[in-house]
Amino acid sequence: MQRHPGTAGWEAEECPLMSPRMGSVILGVDGGASNTVCVCIPAARPFNDPLPVLSRTVAGCSNQNSVGEDRARETLERVMSQALTKARRRPSNVCAVCLAVAGVNHPLDQQRMLDWLRSLSTDIFPSHVKLFVENDAVAALASGTMGKLHGCVLIAGTGTIAYGFTSDGREARAAGAGPVLGDWGSGYGISAQAMTAVVRAYDGRGPETVLTNNILDFLGLASPDELIGWTYEDQSWARIAELLPVVVESAESGDEVANKILHNSVGELASSVKAVVQRLELGGEDGKHPFPLVMVGKVLEANKRWDIGKEVIDCVTKSYPGAYPIHPKVEPAVGAALLAWNAIASELDGDIRTVQ
Amino acid sequence: MQRHPGTAGWEAEECPLMSPRMGSVILGVDGGASNTVCVCIPAARPFNDPLPVLSRTVAGCSNQNSVGEDRARETLERVMSQALTKARRRPSNVCAVCLAVAGVNHPLDQQRMLDWLRSLSTDIFPSHVKLFVENDAVAALASGTMGKLHGCVLIAGTGTIAYGFTSDGREARAAGAGPVLGDWGSGYGISAQAMTAVVRAYDGRGPETVLTNNILDFLGLASPDELIGWTYEDQSWARIAELLPVVVESAESGDEVANKILHNSVGELASSVKAVVQRLELGGEDGKHPFPLVMVGKVLEANKRWDIGKEVIDCVTKSYPGAYPIHPKVEPAVGAALLAWNAIASELDGDIRTVQ
Repeated sequence: MQRHPGTAGWEAEECPLMSPRMGSVILGVDGGASNTVCVCIPAARPFNDPLPVLSRTVAGCSNQNSVGEDRARETLERVMSQALTKARRRPSNVCAVCLAVAGVNHPLDQQRMLDWLRSLSTDIFPSHVKLFVENDAVAALASGTMGKLHGCVLIAGTGTIAYGFTSDGREARAAGAGPVLGDWGSGYGISAQAMTAVVRAYDGRGPETVLTNNILDFLGLASPDELIGWTYEDQSWARIAELLPVVVESAESGDEVANKILHNSVGELASSVKAVVQRLELGGEDGKHPFPLVMVGKVLEANKRWDIGKEVIDCVTKSYPGAYPIHPKVEPAVGAALLAWNAIASELDGDIRTVQ
Repeated sequence: MQRHPGTAGWEAEECPLMSPRMGSVILGVDGGASNTVCVCIPAARPFNDPLPVLSRTVAGCSNQNSVGEDRARETLERVMSQALTKARRRPSNVCAVCLAVAGVNHPLDQQRMLDWLRSLSTDIFPSHVKLFVENDAVAALASGTMGKLHGCVLIAGTGTIAYGFTSDGREARAAGAGPVLGDWGSGYGISAQAMTAVVRAYDGRGPETVLTNNILDFLGLASPDELIGWTYEDQSWARIAELLPVVVESAESGDEVANKILHNSVGELASSVKAVVQRLELGGEDGKHPFPLVMVGKVLEANKRWDIGKEVIDCVTKSYPGAYPIHPKVEPAVGAALLAWNAIASELDGDIRTVQ
């Protein structure tokens, strides 16, 4: 797939980085399956490291596949408006917005979101605002590479996706298809498998497991029968994914069923990364070429005895020893803001193609 | 678990079978994950075989876990009202109602549904109406045994559940926990696995499969990318389960991925039945004791070259050679009506315990 940022609403009416007006800002939004973060950064050169973040706001899930389009849009609008207020800026100060949201899986999703953002911007942002819509994985990659789109990112939070770019702009993804379509390595996937194991132990189809007591205790339920009602009361993905720490603790206590679920998750996550790396040949012909592997999300940040992230890296580097893991120092919302910043800067430099 | 039909609203104010009023009727409702069927039968002795069904009406899904409580109740109310109109009876003619609905998994679900039915009945049915709420599997078993609750039933339609009774009233179930909790043998489960296989083939995590072309053609989609949007547009379980025939045809054409999914489904379904049979010792001490195995639902009715139902029976009878399969001649809604009919008759016979 070729990348065409030029199609995503870049018009060169005005150029805030070249002739910065006082107070010009960029909004970067990271919308995952659990929550949505917006940061506001200054739209000015030179670029400072560490990046000055003027404000940061958080709202609920804005993945339209999880909560529906209306709720997702409402959340996105609110989180941006709050970030501006907190940064003491007006909508007229905004010169670029980058929405990096889970659930943008197809050019049509991207166009639809961009059309909405444009209609919104007509009302509240200045006419010259630059708009950019991406899958949240792109911003997550940028958060680990200071905006350079090269390498592979693995997100494993409530949902999971692997996404990669070659330095000449080709891209590929794997997983990120949500819980119905087999994202078993995600926090949701791990939790759903654990709840399934509880039901199976209860009805005699599966082995006994400490997950039963641990999950029922965590949820304040009296019996596995009640787990079914609890599950379907509210199927928001983030709510189910909150069981992740219970599964990790159960595995650390030696429970075989929980261990099997986590090992399976490691296999799934590594397989997503390897599919992307293979398609893009990020490891070169011999598979040993170095490339960044950006690791993002609570599944990979366990940092406990059972360290899913470490296991995934071990598994990937067996096939691709050049993969060097990066745990970003800034969050994906900052990555989204950086994408917008870099895109504007590239445009100024007469190169709207390479975002680096 | 012990069964206490006496708690389910049986009051002996009036006895339609002993002193039948002209036109007294029983409503039997089967609410599955795809649709809801209501039949209206006469509440009169002697019992005729074949049972005269006065009317039959069909509505959408009434599983509250799939469509929510409000929509489920609205559907149930509508399908009962239409059945009465079609049978040219008034609500005052109704002497008993048996609602057998998927999603009733816990005594609290049962009580909640019964309370609603009672509040409804105060408005429209006579005060002496007998009300009965069950999981749809109980009615499905009754449909194969003419109302006798003994043996095991396997439902595999959009959803799946195995449910069994001993002749002394003990009961057990397996699966029936819905798609989030691992009902992989169901029509939904088979379809979701097939769609997952398409996504995996597309992003390089899985082998190529004819499921890709077959499913995209069936849904009128141009690319696997579009499958994600299609899936989350409307997650009603029945809509996803409609892919079942495509998976069966793909397996019949020799596709390995589709065959693996169907073999896995057979294993899952047989495992549900065996878990119930083992817990209830339906096969006796040596496992060879005869018992009915009632088979219900479109997954088991494939009747094609790839016959999932036959494979499940083969698998169960290897462990329990006494299991004798029954493919009911009447539908589960009639089973529900029979449950109500039998319960009233048993009460008259001075035995409110045994429904046979």
